[in-house]
Amino acid sequence: LTAGVDRGRRGVKADATGAPAVILVEPQLGENIGAAARAMMNFGLAEMRLVKPRGPWPNKKALDMSSGAESILEAAKLFETTPEATADLQRLYATSARMRDMVKPGLTMREAAAVWRGHARQAERCGILFGRERTGLENEDIAIADAIITIPANPEHASLNLAQSVLLAGYEWYQLAADADEIRRSRKGAKPATREELYGLFAHLEGELDNSGFLRLEHKRPRMVRNLRNIFSRASLTDQEVRTLRGVIVSLTKFARRKD
Amino acid sequence: LTAGVDRGRRGVKADATGAPAVILVEPQLGENIGAAARAMMNFGLAEMRLVKPRGPWPNKKALDMSSGAESILEAAKLFETTPEATADLQRLYATSARMRDMVKPGLTMREAAAVWRGHARQAERCGILFGRERTGLENEDIAIADAIITIPANPEHASLNLAQSVLLAGYEWYQLAADADEIRRSRKGAKPATREELYGLFAHLEGELDNSGFLRLEHKRPRMVRNLRNIFSRASLTDQEVRTLRGVIVSLTKFARRKD
Repeated sequence: LTAGVDRGRRGVKADATGAPAVILVEPQLGENIGAAARAMMNFGLAEMRLVKPRGPWPNKKALDMSSGAESILEAAKLFETTPEATADLQRLYATSARMRDMVKPGLTMREAAAVWRGHARQAERCGILFGRERTGLENEDIAIADAIITIPANPEHASLNLAQSVLLAGYEWYQLAADADEIRRSRKGAKPATREELYGLFAHLEGELDNSGFLRLEHKRPRMVRNLRNIFSRASLTDQEVRTLRGVIVSLTKFARRKD
Repeated sequence: LTAGVDRGRRGVKADATGAPAVILVEPQLGENIGAAARAMMNFGLAEMRLVKPRGPWPNKKALDMSSGAESILEAAKLFETTPEATADLQRLYATSARMRDMVKPGLTMREAAAVWRGHARQAERCGILFGRERTGLENEDIAIADAIITIPANPEHASLNLAQSVLLAGYEWYQLAADADEIRRSRKGAKPATREELYGLFAHLEGELDNSGFLRLEHKRPRMVRNLRNIFSRASLTDQEVRTLRGVIVSLTKFARRKD
């Protein structure tokens, strides 16, 4: 009887099916690998691949930084070269702080996320390459990608760190799945007031303002009334809030009468 | 003569005019304030306000973490309460990890950014409240905001740190200004091949494949030719790349002839 509506649902499941793999090429610091894993977990990216990370693996600093995303690090696969790390993928995207001297389609991160969703629908396996912290991807890694992804940013201060870049990739991926309705369903049982309830409030308020002399100047009255109604109309009041406001009016006018 | 086209332009200036103020309410760690300033600088948010930050101000750890965004910290204003920090603003938004038991419009960060752009066009001053690192905003701070902003994320791992939340606010703000054309302008002087150049390539290749016997099965020939043409048509070749491929064909067939 509640056909098509599932009100008990708690947000969108972070279903990683079809989500792009995140491939970190020669990451230098364990902390950054851990922070990238956290960012992936925030936005439903599940598969991490590492090409020649510096230092030992597993990496304690990565684990320390990954709070809650240890499972991603534990499942991460290690590779010696980017081609080996990407051999099973059908689509490959390279992130870069700038376009290169290379003939290659350019996408914003937002555009790329839409493309990834298309790949997922076609069951095409897809990956995103992220380069070293300071120097980014080598041209030879970019050359094997289908397209270059760049994040539009302040040209005078465009550098994002590795985990931030991964965060934005995940963020864009997730936004296309997210059910914004979940967020808007925020009234928690309160109903918007009916127009009738609202008009009752207006009549109550204006009656009391006539009594109090606030609306005594006849030529100004219509405009003052309109302004007041406008304020309360704009506020999207609930039925409860209308009752509250009427209580406020009653309370204020009682006090005024006692003062007389 | 280049009416309306400014090809010399280098990306979008991070013009902070009309950008929302970032108001950090009781931030606990200097590092996070510094990282938030960096994120603001990345995406053209310029004005930071602080409500009762813990510890002394100016804060050394904040400065250490802010590399390149010191100017934002130096200009940051301090306040004792959220109402004081927001008194001059006309629009106020509260970020929250979850919707509260409060009747208040809910927006995603993406939707909010569109709303902020509208405010900027109307020259309405606007601010975004970010709460303490662990506990977020108090309900009393949320109560004075026009709307609540939530970032759709994995419900099983939704927590973003302070600088990440500021980053996503700035990111969304900036994307609406960014000129994606800048990113797509990537051919660096190379021209897409003309169809004539492409057909010349096809004829060259198919001629050599007829010679070599690759296309010898008459009933399969049309389909094989179609498949090959499809591959090269899809690749959006430049004129230079067509010449390169023809060089490849010449080179391969020379070698084959020597082998005979």
